[in-house]
This record gives sequence, structure tokens and C-alpha cells, in this order.
Amino acid sequence: MPKIDLDSVAQTNRTTYPMPFAAEMGRRHYRRLGAAAGLTEIGVSQVVLEPGAVSSQRHWHEGLDEFVVVLEGEAMLVEDDRETLLGPGDCAAFPKDVANGHHLVNRSDRPCTFLAIDNRRGEGDCHYPDADLHWDQANQHYTHKDGTPY
Amino acid sequence: MPKIDLDSVAQTNRTTYPMPFAAEMGRRHYRRLGAAAGLTEIGVSQVVLEPGAVSSQRHWHEGLDEFVVVLEGEAMLVEDDRETLLGPGDCAAFPKDVANGHHLVNRSDRPCTFLAIDNRRGEGDCHYPDADLHWDQANQHYTHKDGTPY
Repeated sequence: MPKIDLDSVAQTNRTTYPMPFAAEMGRRHYRRLGAAAGLTEIGVSQVVLEPGAVSSQRHWHEGLDEFVVVLEGEAMLVEDDRETLLGPGDCAAFPKDVANGHHLVNRSDRPCTFLAIDNRRGEGDCHYPDADLHWDQANQHYTHKDGTPY
Repeated sequence: MPKIDLDSVAQTNRTTYPMPFAAEMGRRHYRRLGAAAGLTEIGVSQVVLEPGAVSSQRHWHEGLDEFVVVLEGEAMLVEDDRETLLGPGDCAAFPKDVANGHHLVNRSDRPCTFLAIDNRRGEGDCHYPDADLHWDQANQHYTHKDGTPY
């Protein structure tokens, strides 16, 4: 059945970040819609940000194109050099290997729901300009900026 | 600027279908948002179906995962064995190489806007169960079902 019963897909606030960054992610909830529907080439997640939540640490990927579309509520898109409010129907794209850290922050008093899409098989490190954090793709783990593992 | 100025992206109703199928596509309008924003790994199109329009010939891809989310209005998702009405926020996914022909048909009296997403580098033939039409990926052209080119 190609139409996705959204409520039937398990929602989680799990994160793979090490502490202390993991502690900031509890108010971000997501459903892996694409995987639940059998997609293997693209990742699609429905993400709900409670008031005060962030979508991730601000980051950019070497190997993943990312695209977001807001479905309900509002969130601030925070980049290296600007902030832009996104509301329902607004879209933003982040081509792979463009060094512009980005995330969404819900500074409103209502939940914000958006879809986050990427090419899930894409490989490459992930960079976090605000945090002492780096994703080391070759070794499949997070490190400090100096390369020492968490 | 990652936020996409939707109105700045050229809208077209172009189709690569041969006649007579091309003649059915004039009321489908689309903007290639992903390409306009520099994405190379995923394709994202904003599609507007006027009343009576179809999103495509009913089809399935050997090599493309597809995902749609409705943003405004309603459209009927037509598959091999069922029809399902999709409205704002509804999502549907079509894993690659699953032989279930699908398209969206706007049977309402208002436009329907949706996003269509795929892994744009995916390769493979495309099958059209209702039409004497086949996409031959190796030769990069449409053929009749018997293999003769249009």
C-alpha cells in the first residue's frame, strides 16, 4: 500500500550523538517513513520539533544531498551567515559538500512538523561548526575535532 | 541561500512522452526544485495538477525510488488494484522495481500541489501498464511494447 499510514510508523527521539550533544535532542521526534515503506535509495523522515527543539547539531554533509519541506508550524533555519524563518510549504535544499552548517530550531510555542529527505546511500564525513564533534565515515564513529573518538 | 524561492524556479509543462501520450500532459505543471538548488543526488519537483490533470502515465520504475507528499488540494492515487484519495500532508512511497503502476489524477475542481522526490541518478527501464509505451534505459528512448521506437 503506497499511501503511508503515518501513525503506524514508529516515532522515536533516539540519537546517535555522544553526550553532551545527545542531551539536546529529546524534543526532536521522528519517523523513518522511507525505510518503513521499503525505500532503499532515498531517506524520508517526518520530524516533529517540540517548542525549543533543534533538528540536529548544525552540520553539513560531504556526501548527502538534503532537502526539507515544512508541513505544519514554523522553524528557524540557521546557517553559517543567516537565519530564515520557514513556514508551511517552505522548502530548503542543502547540496552535498557545500560547507554551510545548517539546522532547524523551533523558537515558536507550537510543534513544527517537516519532512527531511536525503540520498541515504551517500557516504562522507559530517562537519559540525558549532560543536566539538565530527562524523568519521571511514571508521563509522563520532570524534572530537582533534580526531580522538568519543 | 538554501531556502528556495519557489516562484523564481521556472515552471513548465514540458513532457518527453511521444504522442499521443504527450497530449495528455498539458495541465501538469512542474518546477525542478532540487536541480535549481544544486542537488545532484536527489530529484525534487513541485508539481501542480490542474483539475483533470494526471501526474504521468501510470508507471513503475526499475531503478527509481519515488516519494510524494501532497501540499495543497487533493488527488487520487491510482494503482494496479486500488484508488486512494490523498490530501494535504498525505505521503506515498513507491520502492524501485516493485511492479505496481501508479500515478496521481486530479478529479477535483481545485489545483493540487505535491512534491515528487526520487533518486535522480537511478537507472533502469520504466513500465507503463495502461499504455503502449516503454522507457528503454539502455537506448535512452521510448518504445512501443513490442520494442519498436517511437
